[in-house]
Amino acid sequence: MIKRAAGGRGGAGIDLRAVILAGGRGTRFWPLGRASRPKQLLPIAGRKPMVVETVDRVRPLIPPERILMVADAAQTRSLRPLFPDMARANFLVEPLARNTAPSLMLATARVWLDNPEAVVSVLPADQLIREPGKFLEKLRAAAAFAAADQSIVTFGIRPTYPATGYGYIHFSKNRPRKMGRQVFYPVRAFREKPGLALARRFLASGAYAWNSGMFVWRADVFARKLESYAPDLLPFWKRMVEALRKKDPKLLAGIFERIPAVSIDYALMEKARGVVVCPGDFGWSDVGAWSSLFDVWKADGDGNVARGECVALDSHGCLIYNPGRLTALVGVSGLIVVEAGDALLVCPADQDQRVREVVDILRRRKKVRYL
Amino acid sequence: MIKRAAGGRGGAGIDLRAVILAGGRGTRFWPLGRASRPKQLLPIAGRKPMVVETVDRVRPLIPPERILMVADAAQTRSLRPLFPDMARANFLVEPLARNTAPSLMLATARVWLDNPEAVVSVLPADQLIREPGKFLEKLRAAAAFAAADQSIVTFGIRPTYPATGYGYIHFSKNRPRKMGRQVFYPVRAFREKPGLALARRFLASGAYAWNSGMFVWRADVFARKLESYAPDLLPFWKRMVEALRKKDPKLLAGIFERIPAVSIDYALMEKARGVVVCPGDFGWSDVGAWSSLFDVWKADGDGNVARGECVALDSHGCLIYNPGRLTALVGVSGLIVVEAGDALLVCPADQDQRVREVVDILRRRKKVRYL
Repeated sequence: MIKRAAGGRGGAGIDLRAVILAGGRGTRFWPLGRASRPKQLLPIAGRKPMVVETVDRVRPLIPPERILMVADAAQTRSLRPLFPDMARANFLVEPLARNTAPSLMLATARVWLDNPEAVVSVLPADQLIREPGKFLEKLRAAAAFAAADQSIVTFGIRPTYPATGYGYIHFSKNRPRKMGRQVFYPVRAFREKPGLALARRFLASGAYAWNSGMFVWRADVFARKLESYAPDLLPFWKRMVEALRKKDPKLLAGIFERIPAVSIDYALMEKARGVVVCPGDFGWSDVGAWSSLFDVWKADGDGNVARGECVALDSHGCLIYNPGRLTALVGVSGLIVVEAGDALLVCPADQDQRVREVVDILRRRKKVRYL
Repeated sequence: MIKRAAGGRGGAGIDLRAVILAGGRGTRFWPLGRASRPKQLLPIAGRKPMVVETVDRVRPLIPPERILMVADAAQTRSLRPLFPDMARANFLVEPLARNTAPSLMLATARVWLDNPEAVVSVLPADQLIREPGKFLEKLRAAAAFAAADQSIVTFGIRPTYPATGYGYIHFSKNRPRKMGRQVFYPVRAFREKPGLALARRFLASGAYAWNSGMFVWRADVFARKLESYAPDLLPFWKRMVEALRKKDPKLLAGIFERIPAVSIDYALMEKARGVVVCPGDFGWSDVGAWSSLFDVWKADGDGNVARGECVALDSHGCLIYNPGRLTALVGVSGLIVVEAGDALLVCPADQDQRVREVVDILRRRKKVRYL
């Protein structure tokens, strides 16, 4: 058993914290998204960068001083100006990007030092939630559940198609547990991204949810789960606590150089017991690629959705990103057109995953300024 | 018979002049082409504006002081900086745009005052000629023919498809006349743009050429043709001569307000006798719309032609204008993509004529800044 740190808040009320995972990279929104401007910094879901919308969404429940933003040093430099009311100490700088397990161990260690019974809500910075009121209600219930129980709470999204791009959570519909009006189902297993046939079976069974990547845990419970189910990571946790206590960036850098770069799903969730899933029926979308914005942006009468003025002649089902400029479409359908200043993309909506191939070509051609 | 003006050059050598018709408007190259930036000002055929290439093409034969540029006042303001070696007097400002007959009457009157026997070559400012050497050879022969004969010489383009967008010249293959190595056929009739069925018959007969809009005439011959075949225009000609002699812009403005706005084809060519056609086999193109540039710009291995850097994945037969920027195409074919700073066009190549409809919509919506 890990010892609790001295001090901290705790008490009757719940000390709820948010850990915003803002270190994501990715090229799926190229040419708007670049290495220095990943999805969470883009104003694609709403009018503000997604990370700002993520923080704004939890503000009614969690004051800024209890929000931790996790990213590397370069990303943190881009993030800080977006949050003028957040203190420098709330930006937790990872020495290296090593996937989500190290990020979440670091952030949770930081919370644990402050208050081991504080409840951490893990929120990826690049997701869309269309019903923020409902989301907050669920988050409040999940926090209460995690505070009272010894469980890790996850949010699972009801699948609407046999997606092969998400991990799945297999849960037991029997023996649901309640917190207020909210229901929590025991998790049977975390499943990695399936092939299409398996995804279809998951969809048909009704006992599988998409793994949203959102989690709620008490800091001390997280530490105990690590101890029980990821013992190889426990020494890293202990050293992180030490590095944070000593405020020693060199020590932290050394830990990150040696820690395995693994996801929290792989490192802990797939192995841990005592995990429950709460149905995340609050209009969740991970906004995974340009075509996902068809469901987010408002369509005109022809089924075209546009950021920027658009004249469409016999053109249907197109997605245009060209703000502040005019786009004229003549006789085209199902196209994605993205103008990003120095680069322009034209791509059928059903091939938007191939944007990665474009980025790969640019990388091979050493066209650094477009990356 | 019209009296000859005193003075002028004439003599044994030919006093060859160029009249560049630079007043064209048009929207077929929208969004690059605008009201203030018509086709002749665009660097679409080569690297220079088409009007500059038109002038450069005849420089080996015609020195700048014998080149007249005809356009309205606003267009002339755009044109003058392109020709630093041309005197202000060489820019002939039309008070109003009234189609080609008034423009050519004015320009020819101006030449006539200088030298009635000077030979005028009429050159639209927005045409491409791929074999400029051959063109100059033909132009020299045409000038000699026009100087010696009393004919108007036209250049006729051998049709390659049943075009409905050009006027046709019906000529007699019997009794060709020669000047050096060049052949001149007597014109039987000028025909307006035909329907498709008629265009097919023209193409099949072999006795029809496209009207290139290029003409060569002696100034005094032109005046006599007007007198004989367009007597209603003769009073305007006389008043133009008077206005030019007096350098009276008000008088000229009054003439242009009253003169019928008709083309030289309609006003004179369709009626005149003594017109010959010279085969214009020098790689002529009127560059009528975006898709015509497929034959002008160099294609890459996938049949894509691009101004600006391009990454094409499974994309073929596209025409891209996006200079200085990167365009990425994924899985699209036969598209025209034009980025013009504040406006972007995406249009299948076979629908490029519909760009006019876009411009009409913008006009109706009073989106003046895009016109």
